[in-house]
Amino acid sequence: MNDTVLNAERLDNQAYMAAVDLGSNSFHMVIARVVDGDIQLLHREKQKVQLAEGLNEQLVLSEEAIERGLMVLAQFADTLKPFAPQSVRVIATYTLRRAKNTATFLRRAKTVFPFPIEVISGQEEARFIYQGVAHFEHFSGRRLVIDIGGGSTEFAIGEGLQPLRLSSRNMGCVSYGMQHFPQGRISEKRFSRAILQAEQELEPIVSSFRAAGWQQAVGTSGTVKTIRDIIVGLGFSTNALELAHLMALKAHLVEQENSYQLDLPGLTDDRKLLLCSGLAILIAAFNLLQIEQMVYTDAALREGVLYEMSDRLQHLDIRENSVASMQRRYDVDMTQAERVSQTALTLFSQVREQWQLTDEDATLLGWAATLYEVGLHINSSGVQKHSAYILQNANLPGFNQEQQQLIATLVRFHRRKIRADEIPAFSLYQLPQVIYLLVLLRIAVLLNQKRRNDLLPELIATGSSQSLQLHLPADWLAQQTLLTADLQLEQKALKKIAFMLDCPGLSEVIPA
Amino acid sequence: MNDTVLNAERLDNQAYMAAVDLGSNSFHMVIARVVDGDIQLLHREKQKVQLAEGLNEQLVLSEEAIERGLMVLAQFADTLKPFAPQSVRVIATYTLRRAKNTATFLRRAKTVFPFPIEVISGQEEARFIYQGVAHFEHFSGRRLVIDIGGGSTEFAIGEGLQPLRLSSRNMGCVSYGMQHFPQGRISEKRFSRAILQAEQELEPIVSSFRAAGWQQAVGTSGTVKTIRDIIVGLGFSTNALELAHLMALKAHLVEQENSYQLDLPGLTDDRKLLLCSGLAILIAAFNLLQIEQMVYTDAALREGVLYEMSDRLQHLDIRENSVASMQRRYDVDMTQAERVSQTALTLFSQVREQWQLTDEDATLLGWAATLYEVGLHINSSGVQKHSAYILQNANLPGFNQEQQQLIATLVRFHRRKIRADEIPAFSLYQLPQVIYLLVLLRIAVLLNQKRRNDLLPELIATGSSQSLQLHLPADWLAQQTLLTADLQLEQKALKKIAFMLDCPGLSEVIPA
Repeated sequence: MNDTVLNAERLDNQAYMAAVDLGSNSFHMVIARVVDGDIQLLHREKQKVQLAEGLNEQLVLSEEAIERGLMVLAQFADTLKPFAPQSVRVIATYTLRRAKNTATFLRRAKTVFPFPIEVISGQEEARFIYQGVAHFEHFSGRRLVIDIGGGSTEFAIGEGLQPLRLSSRNMGCVSYGMQHFPQGRISEKRFSRAILQAEQELEPIVSSFRAAGWQQAVGTSGTVKTIRDIIVGLGFSTNALELAHLMALKAHLVEQENSYQLDLPGLTDDRKLLLCSGLAILIAAFNLLQIEQMVYTDAALREGVLYEMSDRLQHLDIRENSVASMQRRYDVDMTQAERVSQTALTLFSQVREQWQLTDEDATLLGWAATLYEVGLHINSSGVQKHSAYILQNANLPGFNQEQQQLIATLVRFHRRKIRADEIPAFSLYQLPQVIYLLVLLRIAVLLNQKRRNDLLPELIATGSSQSLQLHLPADWLAQQTLLTADLQLEQKALKKIAFMLDCPGLSEVIPA
Repeated sequence: MNDTVLNAERLDNQAYMAAVDLGSNSFHMVIARVVDGDIQLLHREKQKVQLAEGLNEQLVLSEEAIERGLMVLAQFADTLKPFAPQSVRVIATYTLRRAKNTATFLRRAKTVFPFPIEVISGQEEARFIYQGVAHFEHFSGRRLVIDIGGGSTEFAIGEGLQPLRLSSRNMGCVSYGMQHFPQGRISEKRFSRAILQAEQELEPIVSSFRAAGWQQAVGTSGTVKTIRDIIVGLGFSTNALELAHLMALKAHLVEQENSYQLDLPGLTDDRKLLLCSGLAILIAAFNLLQIEQMVYTDAALREGVLYEMSDRLQHLDIRENSVASMQRRYDVDMTQAERVSQTALTLFSQVREQWQLTDEDATLLGWAATLYEVGLHINSSGVQKHSAYILQNANLPGFNQEQQQLIATLVRFHRRKIRADEIPAFSLYQLPQVIYLLVLLRIAVLLNQKRRNDLLPELIATGSSQSLQLHLPADWLAQQTLLTADLQLEQKALKKIAFMLDCPGLSEVIPA
């Protein structure tokens, strides 16, 4: 690892990238460049924030924790000054995924940190961790990866670069430390309870993970590193961890009265209060998954994020696979999906400048247009609700929570009434942007409701603030009584969200 | 049709059955017996109630409409006195499906009418209508069936007894009459608007229905019968209806000023205000589905209900097919489903008497136990919510709304916290009954969470009011630390809904 001095000049090179990981224990930043298609890490920063410590039982994040986080973000912002927005990805995990006041945190973060923060699901977190490990070290066979974080622990099994099982459990070294080993207290009973609770948390995934199987078990994260260092330092093992080593360490710890007094090789002060809880979680995993040996690997979520950024630079967007997989799983009528998507993107290209929309907006709109009917799998009646439910709750690798939520929202209101109060407050998207994409999707669906390829004339659209002018040939429109009536209904539906749809020549023959 | 006098003596014979249809325009009752496996209709009663007329825009059913309905129910109750409960099925459709105060109606109905009233979905309504027609008259080929009701119009396509497309649209001769032809007013413009709105309502199903195709189009319901009678009476046609006849009738009607003054062959007073709206809906269907000819058939929902009752007497329960189809569609792990179902039913058989549970309860519990994991198709995280969402919204032929809702509720709370306030108020089920089934499902899932066949010891259960005693062999329990901890958690979860789970010998080694 070179602690290369960064300067603006060098960063003009598009190949520099930064990944930031807002974890529940620490915030991490890694800076790297792509060399010959591979990633070279240049710089790492780590700041202990202990965000999870500020999450109370009602899942509200304390003001103190928010301020600790913002302070570190401000420092990172300074380092990241020379970076273009597209060269930085910022991922937030457990604590910001769970906190009820995450919106507040994100709003305040914008004032000190100019890069968008993406909150990701637990499964997505597990996927990034797996990717980080899989790219970092080749292994031919199935690999189990475990990452014990501050608030959650991620489990993944995969082969090569392909994850096969992904899961995130709500147990972490910070939260279990507060719950089971408060004020650094240690006892056999405390360990038993912590291990048992971790086992209960793990139980639902055990049969599926054991059925998948693996040839190598890898631990990542500071917790595993610390435990490995201590066990090697104490001479229990020279490298790989086994259950016997963990039990020996536990026995050693129980002999101590308090974590503050611990004096162990490789144990830093900031890790003292997290050791017992992390060990309990690791023992539970060894017990239930029947892990024989585990090696430590120095790669994790942020490295996974970097590898995916480098893929996107080469126009490999894993989200495409996720969308295609949803289309297959829900038997989407692809002919119709392509019709709607094509119409939506044709309109998009004509209004994108006036509405200041981006390539990413086009991508998300196109996906929404191919996924709006997944809900037919559940029922054709109320399809918009079912599609939205599926898209909101599915595991969509590559999507952060807001991207997924945006697509679900577009699909939720692709027809019928638009309930403005049900459109969530996004941090990554502005409301007008959401409305514009929604209007384009609705009109594309409406124009293609006959599911015919030969029907549509050339479409000409002009956008201005909160309005769209849609030109349809008068002679064609005259023959489409039903479509005319539907466009009139659409005008009314959009008017309710203060949007004007203007179709010159739209017949007023049949007023409602 | 024999208007056979019914008497108690004859009705001792189990082969007598009654079906009651609480429609949006009329309430109907048919009484029949099974002769040589076929159904012989013995008696029909019809009372105009115009329930849909009492449904306001906020979907609240008026006191007057409720009272009209209860009065007719009381009359029907008198006729049905000699019938055993299992020989009567009472189905409610559009208005009670949509009304926000249906619970009030059902509660008050119980005081005058001793049979359970089942509210069914629109798709289920369409299915019964199709069954009624398909059993009534054989046709070799595909058949389209349209039933214009007071509040909704049902569309079905099928072959033989197998429905292939089912849909219910929210448009009916009572609701469209009030909206488009108030006070009996008639005009060309009123017709145009009503037809256009009906076409818009139909639009979403047009491509799917036209793609399926049919060789015969059949109309059922009073609306089609009246229109057929008038058209034959006026000499436009001798039997089948064509679009030209409908348009000629429309032209004739527009010449009249008001529906009250209509004097047409076959048009009774109580049908006058429903003629124009029914005709508009029929014209829209002819237009969009491009129907060439339609014949009238004197069979409908209530006959479909009778045929299904006769099937159930022969232990052919169509719901079994629906459950099996869900298991396939959602790739259910059937080995696990059978484990859980077997455990649940083993426990059920030991407590059914104390808890006064029925065969039907066992059936529903068994199905819930094989469907609780359908939500894995969406995501393993939060599976209980996804399973419930799917089961609540899926089209499950044979299930009435409350049966479907009961299964969804059991599945919703098959693990984790039970939110008592989210358990719906059922009309067909008592709360303790729901709780008992839920407890059995939860324990069956908990005991089988390891997905192993060789694990469980003999289970002995005793039930009493709001409590279950579950005996597990002490030596077996001693080896199952995790299960013990889960049973302790379960005790706590059930305590929150005032239910006591008593497991003698349950280790108290690890108190929380």
